[in-house]
Amino acid sequence: MSQPKYLTGDKAGIDEFLSRFDVFLFDCDGAYDCKTPTPKPICVSSIGVLWSGDYLFDKVPETLEMLRSKGKQLVFVTNNSTKSRADYKKKFDKLGIPAKVEEVFGSSYSAAVYIARILKLPAPKNKVFVLGESGVEQELDAEGVQYVGGTDPSFRRDIEPEDFTKLADGSALDPDVGIVLSGLDFHMNYLKLATGFQYLQRGAVFLATNVDSTLPMAHSLFPGAGSSSAGLVKAFGKEALALGKPSQAMMDAIEGKFQFDRSRTCMVGDRMNTDIQFGIEGKLGGTLAVLTGVSSKEEFLSEGAPTVPMAYVDALGDLVA
Amino acid sequence: MSQPKYLTGDKAGIDEFLSRFDVFLFDCDGAYDCKTPTPKPICVSSIGVLWSGDYLFDKVPETLEMLRSKGKQLVFVTNNSTKSRADYKKKFDKLGIPAKVEEVFGSSYSAAVYIARILKLPAPKNKVFVLGESGVEQELDAEGVQYVGGTDPSFRRDIEPEDFTKLADGSALDPDVGIVLSGLDFHMNYLKLATGFQYLQRGAVFLATNVDSTLPMAHSLFPGAGSSSAGLVKAFGKEALALGKPSQAMMDAIEGKFQFDRSRTCMVGDRMNTDIQFGIEGKLGGTLAVLTGVSSKEEFLSEGAPTVPMAYVDALGDLVA
Repeated sequence: MSQPKYLTGDKAGIDEFLSRFDVFLFDCDGAYDCKTPTPKPICVSSIGVLWSGDYLFDKVPETLEMLRSKGKQLVFVTNNSTKSRADYKKKFDKLGIPAKVEEVFGSSYSAAVYIARILKLPAPKNKVFVLGESGVEQELDAEGVQYVGGTDPSFRRDIEPEDFTKLADGSALDPDVGIVLSGLDFHMNYLKLATGFQYLQRGAVFLATNVDSTLPMAHSLFPGAGSSSAGLVKAFGKEALALGKPSQAMMDAIEGKFQFDRSRTCMVGDRMNTDIQFGIEGKLGGTLAVLTGVSSKEEFLSEGAPTVPMAYVDALGDLVA
Repeated sequence: MSQPKYLTGDKAGIDEFLSRFDVFLFDCDGAYDCKTPTPKPICVSSIGVLWSGDYLFDKVPETLEMLRSKGKQLVFVTNNSTKSRADYKKKFDKLGIPAKVEEVFGSSYSAAVYIARILKLPAPKNKVFVLGESGVEQELDAEGVQYVGGTDPSFRRDIEPEDFTKLADGSALDPDVGIVLSGLDFHMNYLKLATGFQYLQRGAVFLATNVDSTLPMAHSLFPGAGSSSAGLVKAFGKEALALGKPSQAMMDAIEGKFQFDRSRTCMVGDRMNTDIQFGIEGKLGGTLAVLTGVSSKEEFLSEGAPTVPMAYVDALGDLVA
């Protein structure tokens, strides 16, 4: 495997690199670096490609504008399933990142696109039972996918003895549900878990928006979407197909939406084992690592590194510096 | 490995077998046999060693009385963590099984005994954060173990934005918690999950009453205790030490309570891969399989069967027939 090319300060190298691509996929998920779990985890603030916590990295808007001025298509990829693309756009606005709703590609939208454009179960048995927040529902709506569960208040209650009977005999189930979709659910409960498990036992397709084990929040780590679906995985004995990074089902969904040429597409990210791996496995034309995030230069430059990007910069803004 | 001895109808063989043991451990967990998941699982009623659903197998009370008359210690072992020993005693009474509270050994009690008599964390950091029902709390009370969480109504609510901050900075946590104990929780929610995860990140010992993936109820399968703890396992990235079968931690806890001689103890069960395996790994003097339950004779008589009991009977009542 060849060594990744270092582009910071190399104007000719940058121009040549950018000319190879029409589409850039940007990782948008920050992460905390948490160490020493006893007695209290010490976590540095959210780090990533575009921002760190509430701090936008230097020259990020200029870089994005430069890419747009060259006619590049930008796609902002995030595993956060609780927010819809419209919700995410608000976050971008707040941070000062110029972006359009159509450029945001979250794992909830990824799941909706996968269900509507790739899976395409025949009606009527193509309804979705949702475990998750309104972000999932908004994106299913956007793709015209019918669903039950989700934020429906009738599921936000304790399980009662008669629920066991009605779930077991199927009278509490919607016969048209053919898919169970699990995302990060701050309102998880046993009733939803048991309902989802009944649908799975009856043959429903098992999908997850993403399976990140943790969620960085408030300078600490909280249970992530993978933690929300873990109960179903344990009961059912099979993993869900994840529609978030690094699952290639997300790449297929992005392609289903943007119809891009993979050989002319570049993944930009800070994590070797998720972002860069995602681009390599997706057979994209290129990958670009930024060093403002989780993975260090040593990690992918070392002898026998499992994942090596095509090129790297110290920070995204170096592309216009 | 020698062939198991068939004892049904062999009075001399039964007498010789029984004379080898002072203590008999009985599996008490029924199971459903569910097949063909699509379009609807077909489940036969709960099957087991002592009963099937609400039906007590033939001559079970007589068999238990016969063993008691010979001075044998009986222990009824169950992974059901939602019920205390007192709750279970009521079930036994209803079914017509003569039993004493002291003879019941459930996974919640197992966990309490393990915490109080084996783990013995130094005070004050020996409090337990409970994810589970009142059965867990009753058994911790019985062993004088302090706990928080559990059925406390203040944890039965949605997580709020300020909870993230207070959990992250530790102000919502009890500094004396040194153990997280997860059992089957019909009132699971994200607040409890996030709280348990914070304690684990701060170094708490991670225990589970049991990790059964499913719970047979209403002639169907529902998420089991392993499904309740799966979210924590996924977030934390490590399995809990399970205090139920087939974990040997349960055998240690039974020994911690009854102080028995393992070589003079026999495990009686219907499942090769849990009950019989539990006895063999526990280096008990013997194991007795009954064929009224999950495993068939062919399963352990076949060439190269992974788990072989010392002896077997068609039904438990054959010991007095």
